[in-house]
Amino acid sequence: MTSEETVVLALGGNAISQEGEEGNIYQQFTNTRRSMDAVLDIVAMGKKVLITHGNGPQVGNELIRVESALSVAPDIPLGVLVGDTQGGMGYMIEQCLVNMLHDRGMDRQTACLITQTLVDPADPSFRDPDKFVGRFYHEAEAREIMSERGWRMKEDKGRGWRRVVPSPQPLSILQKDIIRLLLDRDILVVAAGGGGVPVYLEDNGWLEGVDAVVDKDLASAVLGNEIGAQTLMILTGVEKVALDFATPQQRFVDRLTLQEARQYLKAGQFPAGSMGPKIRAAIRFLENGGRRVIITSIEKASAAISGDGGTTLLAED
Amino acid sequence: MTSEETVVLALGGNAISQEGEEGNIYQQFTNTRRSMDAVLDIVAMGKKVLITHGNGPQVGNELIRVESALSVAPDIPLGVLVGDTQGGMGYMIEQCLVNMLHDRGMDRQTACLITQTLVDPADPSFRDPDKFVGRFYHEAEAREIMSERGWRMKEDKGRGWRRVVPSPQPLSILQKDIIRLLLDRDILVVAAGGGGVPVYLEDNGWLEGVDAVVDKDLASAVLGNEIGAQTLMILTGVEKVALDFATPQQRFVDRLTLQEARQYLKAGQFPAGSMGPKIRAAIRFLENGGRRVIITSIEKASAAISGDGGTTLLAED
Repeated sequence: MTSEETVVLALGGNAISQEGEEGNIYQQFTNTRRSMDAVLDIVAMGKKVLITHGNGPQVGNELIRVESALSVAPDIPLGVLVGDTQGGMGYMIEQCLVNMLHDRGMDRQTACLITQTLVDPADPSFRDPDKFVGRFYHEAEAREIMSERGWRMKEDKGRGWRRVVPSPQPLSILQKDIIRLLLDRDILVVAAGGGGVPVYLEDNGWLEGVDAVVDKDLASAVLGNEIGAQTLMILTGVEKVALDFATPQQRFVDRLTLQEARQYLKAGQFPAGSMGPKIRAAIRFLENGGRRVIITSIEKASAAISGDGGTTLLAED
Repeated sequence: MTSEETVVLALGGNAISQEGEEGNIYQQFTNTRRSMDAVLDIVAMGKKVLITHGNGPQVGNELIRVESALSVAPDIPLGVLVGDTQGGMGYMIEQCLVNMLHDRGMDRQTACLITQTLVDPADPSFRDPDKFVGRFYHEAEAREIMSERGWRMKEDKGRGWRRVVPSPQPLSILQKDIIRLLLDRDILVVAAGGGGVPVYLEDNGWLEGVDAVVDKDLASAVLGNEIGAQTLMILTGVEKVALDFATPQQRFVDRLTLQEARQYLKAGQFPAGSMGPKIRAAIRFLENGGRRVIITSIEKASAAISGDGGTTLLAED
């Protein structure tokens, strides 16, 4: 019934929490239901589908809750909090999937896997962490926390001081074989939420968690390669990739060759905080066996996969 | 290589958080590592193993964190918090499993699945919720919260007022087919954490979460039946079941027939807050296709499964 094409759908934060909303759970469920309906348009085409997702607002709130309750409940390291968000968000995503499948009379099983992502403890990001997480502090508080708890903190664009953590490159997603096994049975899989819980290998061969976060688009690219996916869709807030973004020359592009993507990235065309990491993930996926990457919005996803809309990057120029 | 016997290992809270400890994450990892080492003694016998676990202390702390941060981070319903603990604890359990497998040079894959548990919205426990969760409040605060937020609250043994939630009977674990599929491949599976996230079927056929908790031993029994497990091990703080508990006549029992278990339960031999629910879960498992239930400590688990220690309940008298 299904084709041999495996598609990784990397859902951006706005698939679950819309900008400007408080991000309460009712809003999250409403957004997720709408997003899963769009996902099912792609499933209905007969694709094998793996869903990955970000967790920025959710893990940010978890950090705030842990800090607010330190006097009455024990601290939790960031890695375990990423695991928490995989559980809570995975439950929500899977439930919305099942409900939307029911509405369409579609008979497909679903599974949500807790995922660990292997990183290199020698990754340069451990020396110079720059990913802001959690709440804002005044400088005096920040200096006290840094000396007491060993956090690295930096000033965030004049808005206050925040904790910074490393964002190391993902090397491998440890649950890849199970994910492939489930996809082969035409099961819809949710995995690598928040990029997976970052872990490294200790000298004794043990996995050990680390206070870091992995970029979810990069993790999706690596996982996509590991499971032999042909297509990676990076679903974000915009319909297409722009060149000369926010200038009078701004234009949207339908297609980018791998070489063009590399050149534009090098030329600084893609901002570090938004499109840059997505283009990097796309290049990584295409350089390691992936056939195409589509960057578009969740609303345009099913049209784009049929060639109508979005920005498509192809491995073969 | 493995036998056809499938064993459900239902880990009690003390497998992860020991009484008297603060329950910080280092203690949790240390306890979990020791528990997973015991689990691997059973895996090494060639059994197919499903691990389930409680989440009492963990979800209690999550509730405290949510309450502490209500002014700065949105509320989260109890069901989503159960999902969170499945993620964080599942990550911890799976990582400890993988590390202990490495130490033993054993080659087995692991998977942790986010799990939903179907309950009946007409379950009597919804009318009279009696499961205490979260922090203690003074009576005046409690009365205010009850009127403002619609919580049910009760006085908890002179220690203050707490929220009470329903603990409905589990009807089915929605991920059972996936769990069976993975066990058939000799994969070690972690599932039904905290009894699973309780959900019910709405009139329109949608799953909907509900603020309740499911007893993890009962959920393990139901899931065990659904996947055709032969053995359910309920791992708790004591080595054997006692009769005439805490009286001069107290004695430990090696074996109980199903009929004896029913009679002793009816006679009030097993306290409602501790051994009672375990005996109920055992009866449920044996009445629905299970062959044996062993109630013992994690330390004695591997000896008990070979017939040396613990209390064994058999379906055939």
